[in-house]
Amino acid sequence: MKNSLYIVIVGCGRLGSHLANQLSRAGHSVVVIDLNEDTFGDLSPDFSGFRVVGDATRIAVLKEAKVKQADIFFATTHEDNVNLMVAQVALKLFNVKHVLARVFDPRREEVYSQLGIETICPTLVAAEIFLMAVASSRAARGDVRP
Amino acid sequence: MKNSLYIVIVGCGRLGSHLANQLSRAGHSVVVIDLNEDTFGDLSPDFSGFRVVGDATRIAVLKEAKVKQADIFFATTHEDNVNLMVAQVALKLFNVKHVLARVFDPRREEVYSQLGIETICPTLVAAEIFLMAVASSRAARGDVRP
Repeated sequence: MKNSLYIVIVGCGRLGSHLANQLSRAGHSVVVIDLNEDTFGDLSPDFSGFRVVGDATRIAVLKEAKVKQADIFFATTHEDNVNLMVAQVALKLFNVKHVLARVFDPRREEVYSQLGIETICPTLVAAEIFLMAVASSRAARGDVRP
Repeated sequence: MKNSLYIVIVGCGRLGSHLANQLSRAGHSVVVIDLNEDTFGDLSPDFSGFRVVGDATRIAVLKEAKVKQADIFFATTHEDNVNLMVAQVALKLFNVKHVLARVFDPRREEVYSQLGIETICPTLVAAEIFLMAVASSRAARGDVRP
């Protein structure tokens, strides 16, 4: 498929499996890597990508997932340190152009960005949405203009 | 302070403490409830609100936090079921107008919304941001127009 991208996803938890399912359905070539084979149970029956069981911090595992060919690399495990490390390896050793990592601890975002890795911190994004609710509550009370 | 709201936050984890610090700094009256006193260590030194140690699924604990007076109620614990229950109690028994809950499992969002509770699912929000990266990658390759 001409528009299809090659996407490697590390971690098949809620976020990883959700992304894998969506991207596979959209026609992209997806490879998911996870230490634990059981997590692949969250992939939908129509997931057409590949599953790699292994530790993504090992070069051999990344090679097996053909990370060198990846257009995009997502680090979505529950461990910030793992995400940082595998994202660095994808960026520096495999020259993947687009590398994104999830970070749980907002204080690490600065380090990531200095290393050239795009990050997304669900806590901060959720906080912003909660804070918007406060703003709208104040507006509803007439304390401030919306 | 005229513009100040009374805000009750259940859970003093990363999200809860971040919200408490921000909202206290903005001049609002904030009460944070958590089972575990140690979590209050993440509140900043200038946090001017109240800390309640206790199980927020108990009515007595919510009364101690004066939930009846709350303009906004946030359920931010790591347990979807706890968030669902305390949000319901705040909404139905204490008549809090604005109740928001974090849910980790996207499949529960529908139930929450049918019960009248606004939800925010960090996984889905993060996923959307990751998917936007895919769209921008395709645009950069010239496969699709941006």
